Amino acid sequence: MTEVMEYHSNLEVSVAKVQPRILSGFMELLPEDQILFNQMFDTIRSVYEQFGFAPIETPAIELAEILLAKAGGETEKQIYRFKKGDKDLALHFDLTVPLARYVAQYEGQLTFPFRRYQMQKVWRGERAGAGRFREFYQCDIDVIGSDNILVDAEIPSVIYTVFRRLGFERFTIKINNRKVLNGFYESLGIGDIATSVLRVVDKIDKIGREGVADELSRLGLTPEQSDKLFSFIAIEGDIAQVIAGLKSLEITNENFVRGLTELEQVANAMLLLGVPETNFRIDLSIARGLDYYTGTVYETTLDDYPEVGSVCSGGRFDDLASYYTDTRLPGVGISIGLTRLFYKLKEAGIVVPGSKTTSKVIILPMGDEALQRALTVASVFRDNSISTEVNFDGGKMAKQMRYADRLKVPYVVVIGDTEVSTGQIVLKDMLTGDQQTLSLEEAAEKLSR
Amino acid sequence: MTEVMEYHSNLEVSVAKVQPRILSGFMELLPEDQILFNQMFDTIRSVYEQFGFAPIETPAIELAEILLAKAGGETEKQIYRFKKGDKDLALHFDLTVPLARYVAQYEGQLTFPFRRYQMQKVWRGERAGAGRFREFYQCDIDVIGSDNILVDAEIPSVIYTVFRRLGFERFTIKINNRKVLNGFYESLGIGDIATSVLRVVDKIDKIGREGVADELSRLGLTPEQSDKLFSFIAIEGDIAQVIAGLKSLEITNENFVRGLTELEQVANAMLLLGVPETNFRIDLSIARGLDYYTGTVYETTLDDYPEVGSVCSGGRFDDLASYYTDTRLPGVGISIGLTRLFYKLKEAGIVVPGSKTTSKVIILPMGDEALQRALTVASVFRDNSISTEVNFDGGKMAKQMRYADRLKVPYVVVIGDTEVSTGQIVLKDMLTGDQQTLSLEEAAEKLSR
Repeated sequence: MTEVMEYHSNLEVSVAKVQPRILSGFMELLPEDQILFNQMFDTIRSVYEQFGFAPIETPAIELAEILLAKAGGETEKQIYRFKKGDKDLALHFDLTVPLARYVAQYEGQLTFPFRRYQMQKVWRGERAGAGRFREFYQCDIDVIGSDNILVDAEIPSVIYTVFRRLGFERFTIKINNRKVLNGFYESLGIGDIATSVLRVVDKIDKIGREGVADELSRLGLTPEQSDKLFSFIAIEGDIAQVIAGLKSLEITNENFVRGLTELEQVANAMLLLGVPETNFRIDLSIARGLDYYTGTVYETTLDDYPEVGSVCSGGRFDDLASYYTDTRLPGVGISIGLTRLFYKLKEAGIVVPGSKTTSKVIILPMGDEALQRALTVASVFRDNSISTEVNFDGGKMAKQMRYADRLKVPYVVVIGDTEVSTGQIVLKDMLTGDQQTLSLEEAAEKLSR
Repeated sequence: MTEVMEYHSNLEVSVAKVQPRILSGFMELLPEDQILFNQMFDTIRSVYEQFGFAPIETPAIELAEILLAKAGGETEKQIYRFKKGDKDLALHFDLTVPLARYVAQYEGQLTFPFRRYQMQKVWRGERAGAGRFREFYQCDIDVIGSDNILVDAEIPSVIYTVFRRLGFERFTIKINNRKVLNGFYESLGIGDIATSVLRVVDKIDKIGREGVADELSRLGLTPEQSDKLFSFIAIEGDIAQVIAGLKSLEITNENFVRGLTELEQVANAMLLLGVPETNFRIDLSIARGLDYYTGTVYETTLDDYPEVGSVCSGGRFDDLASYYTDTRLPGVGISIGLTRLFYKLKEAGIVVPGSKTTSKVIILPMGDEALQRALTVASVFRDNSISTEVNFDGGKMAKQMRYADRLKVPYVVVIGDTEVSTGQIVLKDMLTGDQQTLSLEEAAEKLSR
């Protein structure tokens, strides 16, 4: 046998494998974590639906011309953009631009105010890093086509309900109003650079007061102007105190007066809508740098995990879709970045993986006759909406129990010869170890609870 | 004013708009259709969970090297592939390749048999056409790491439950076995070109018997061989008749004998698992051309809409992840192409859009005091899991009713001065027009049903 032939025969027995791996910045979960992620997703979705938001879903791929109609700078750099045939395409990097396009496109077929929720993956080719993702879920609600200030109060009541249902008690919805900020800047004589100042103020949590002061002086603010700005955003206290503090500034320009009225109305309506004052406050340092916010703005933080940052942000805008239609579409909305939230909660040990299966019960049949009975029992359970797996692989009791144990299933049903002849089943609670011999109906009833 | 200045001032009043539109081959729905789509999605998911399948989700973007480890030909042409930095990336075109990668990557952390479901969008840059989509949902289940033939029977019992819950009664799950086919081809002396023959036979619904005969002769089959093949796939009848027909061929090669035993076992276990014989049959013309199927194969058709084609297909494979690991991972699974199914059902008039809102009830407050009361009522309803919208825009009764009417909401609650003082509410059934004056608790109870 020549060496060449040997080489060939070696090639045949061990084909080169591709190393299984994913890209950095992409989150992928084991089933026990995916189950928890989906529970959070489902909770958010059910709250959105309970407030009467209707679902829409837009394509992941759109024409780059559509997605980048408004964008520039950072967005252009981060977007996944590519050609297919002669088309210049991109993956959507948020759900707001697709919403604007959607509303403009189907304007005549939608009923306004249009209350929509949208929960989809978006993609941004950011530098990867712990807790920064290139693919992540956004869970958005928006009310489009309404100027009604009560909607500004309803949105945080949705946020409140979401985080309560997710199991949190200690969180704070921070509200502010862009007109108040703009009006204040006008009173300082820096109204013409308000947007730039807003962006800088927004960074205060990241770069600190000194960093902000540096950037403000670069924008041309005098030390006095900066100082006034810092004492303004430091106005603190409960709702009444902050409102009183703002009134005491005696600023009379239209923006400020209107914004202050709105802020007061929103805070009062939030109380009426059942958001307790322990869970919200006015925070004048919240600016939401994006230039399309024009009124109320929101951020939400978890009191015990400030390092997580804002878990739900948004605000009111005057005109959603000006790049696609002449119709003025005012609205208000928020977004929850679920992928990052889940990652941070898991990192903080708040989210702890449990079962590796969606089954509430696994049926372990001991022998062939038991298997037949197991199939009947499984059908009855499933008809009662009890998630059920039958262990087809059978085998000895110890082996089957080990399988159920590894999956961390809550309940196990054992069926042996005795149970086949009596028609009863043995139900074991895997958490407590309790074991009961029950009729099929009794077991179904117990598991349905 | 010069002409140039006029031109500029015109530009300012009317900024050029980007025409809002999506790419062809992408499905996008109005809310009333999206609600129905999501209901179908939720139904499929809940059945998958009731059979104890656990969720996983894989990134939409993977390394091209991973996704194309096995592929070639058509797949390479259809895939959305692009560079980002120095990385060669692609969007996944199915959920099977990512599953193979996932199982190989986390092999040590998964419990086998690994029962997973996965319901995600996939992308294929196919030629667009009515009912052909470039972005579509696949709803997959697979059981990995099991050779157990009973699992081959459980999979169609999941399919059966899915389509029953989706509201269908008249559908047929067609099963076949690749070993039976291969064994039969061996007996004809054409075992070496079995895969090519399988692919041709698979096209019989599309190109007809003559088209198949043409292609078979091009593969080198004699007219006698083709005739035998046609009379083989024409063996018809109920389970017992087809099994008897196959036995009467007296083919003794190992493949055929083993396949026949498997086919008989699967059919018997399906009956035991509660799939009625009216909803399944053995169809020897089903081949599933893909070369990784090695045993049982499935297709499902809607009896009254044969033109829709197979709505759920799959089969058993010997080795899922050979491109990524040396571990042999046999399994069995199926996929439902939900986007196409939904499109076809809508086209056939089976899916008819209803409400444009997820709300079960909209509260119409007549005046400011009524609004306060409306907010309380809404909180109580939502605490009882009743999806509720409050019409903040108020206005006259007729205007508010028109809004509720346009949204096609099932119920409306009217609160006026009288109701504020009595503490009662008026509940109107928008379908029947029936109207009742009820206490808040009575209304909540009625709407919870």
